[in-house]
Amino acid sequence: MDTPDQGHIVKSFDEELRRQKNLLAEMGGLVESQTTLAREALLRKDTESASRAIELDPRVDALAMEAEQTTIRMLALRQPMAIDLRRIVGTLKIANELERVGDYATNVAKRSLVLQQFPANFSMNGVSRLSRGVQENLKAIIDAVGEDDADRAAEVWRSDESLDDIYNGIFRELVTHMMEDVRNITPATHLLFIAKNLERMGDHATNIAETLYYAVKGERLPAQRPKGDTSAYAVVRAPGE
Amino acid sequence: MDTPDQGHIVKSFDEELRRQKNLLAEMGGLVESQTTLAREALLRKDTESASRAIELDPRVDALAMEAEQTTIRMLALRQPMAIDLRRIVGTLKIANELERVGDYATNVAKRSLVLQQFPANFSMNGVSRLSRGVQENLKAIIDAVGEDDADRAAEVWRSDESLDDIYNGIFRELVTHMMEDVRNITPATHLLFIAKNLERMGDHATNIAETLYYAVKGERLPAQRPKGDTSAYAVVRAPGE
Repeated sequence: MDTPDQGHIVKSFDEELRRQKNLLAEMGGLVESQTTLAREALLRKDTESASRAIELDPRVDALAMEAEQTTIRMLALRQPMAIDLRRIVGTLKIANELERVGDYATNVAKRSLVLQQFPANFSMNGVSRLSRGVQENLKAIIDAVGEDDADRAAEVWRSDESLDDIYNGIFRELVTHMMEDVRNITPATHLLFIAKNLERMGDHATNIAETLYYAVKGERLPAQRPKGDTSAYAVVRAPGE
Repeated sequence: MDTPDQGHIVKSFDEELRRQKNLLAEMGGLVESQTTLAREALLRKDTESASRAIELDPRVDALAMEAEQTTIRMLALRQPMAIDLRRIVGTLKIANELERVGDYATNVAKRSLVLQQFPANFSMNGVSRLSRGVQENLKAIIDAVGEDDADRAAEVWRSDESLDDIYNGIFRELVTHMMEDVRNITPATHLLFIAKNLERMGDHATNIAETLYYAVKGERLPAQRPKGDTSAYAVVRAPGE
């Protein structure tokens, strides 16, 4: 005689799990939009896109808070088994990561509004490549989350290193531009922070990949990925120095 | 006849809670050390301090992971009551915040190593004031966590705005120094990122304050604190521009 109640509990647990996944999918979609809008704001000097990216952020934050509350309720009221526990906690972590990606996209959009006040005296190619790569990695990892695809997660995880290389190149390039012409200093400074934000968005895609891989497979990705941002150590010397 | 088992359960739950608090205290102490070492590395050009700040980071990360695992086990195996739930989840969040503070302190230490290669052609007063303020706020909030002191948390929360003002001043100052002398560009760029890291450390102290206040009081701090970093919108024009 265990069916009615048991059945009810099992079903509603699955429902809650599905609800969590839907929350993640919705967040993922919003954050992808923010990223695309921030990119347009940046490269096309499009004020409208910047505003829309910024306006989406409170919704992303609200969903992250909802995901957190759902997770805690599931953990506290049920006694999930090991595999469910891994997945539930994974959702919480991924929601947090997505929320931070949204924050960085918002910051990129805000800084792009300042950049629009300056004529571009130097190429945006590096930043464009970086933002394209980050956008692709985010899309890939958000899809992977939707499909519990650990192999795809591992791919995203590996490809972040090339983004770090692009970032390090941009850092040196921008400092050089500042040295060439004093009028480049303010816009290049904002671009430095924009590039840093993009690089951090890539890092969070990597974190999501690690979390997803563990949630699905129950084992960690092979080894600690070497941190690829070496710009903390970068030295660019002024001419004649 | 409920005492033996009940007593055992209650006692071990309290033990786990105490263990969680000890973890936080240990993390707090390590992160405070990192912050102090990073400040010395920065202001006294002290390579040894920088290395020690960097070396502490893996221990902070390991403790954060331990705090996470303890929390999840407590949530999953027990069915905590509302107030316990708030405190347990609070510990998890505070551990995450501390871990990130540690990351930023590590980054400050790394960048200070680069700065040591450059003669200081401009004053470090702003950065020194910012780093002192952040250090004080961190110490205050770590103490408040140890004593479940919600009022102190509220104080820290309010005082972050003045740190944001200092940061915004530094941003303008450094950009101006870059414009004055091309040789300032590389060191000032690193200082910009250092200042940004310090400002973020202050933000995390604020986040800890919010979490602690809620864990203790069961209600949120009065209102969303206005984000004080306006540097995303900052425009500094080159002379004659």
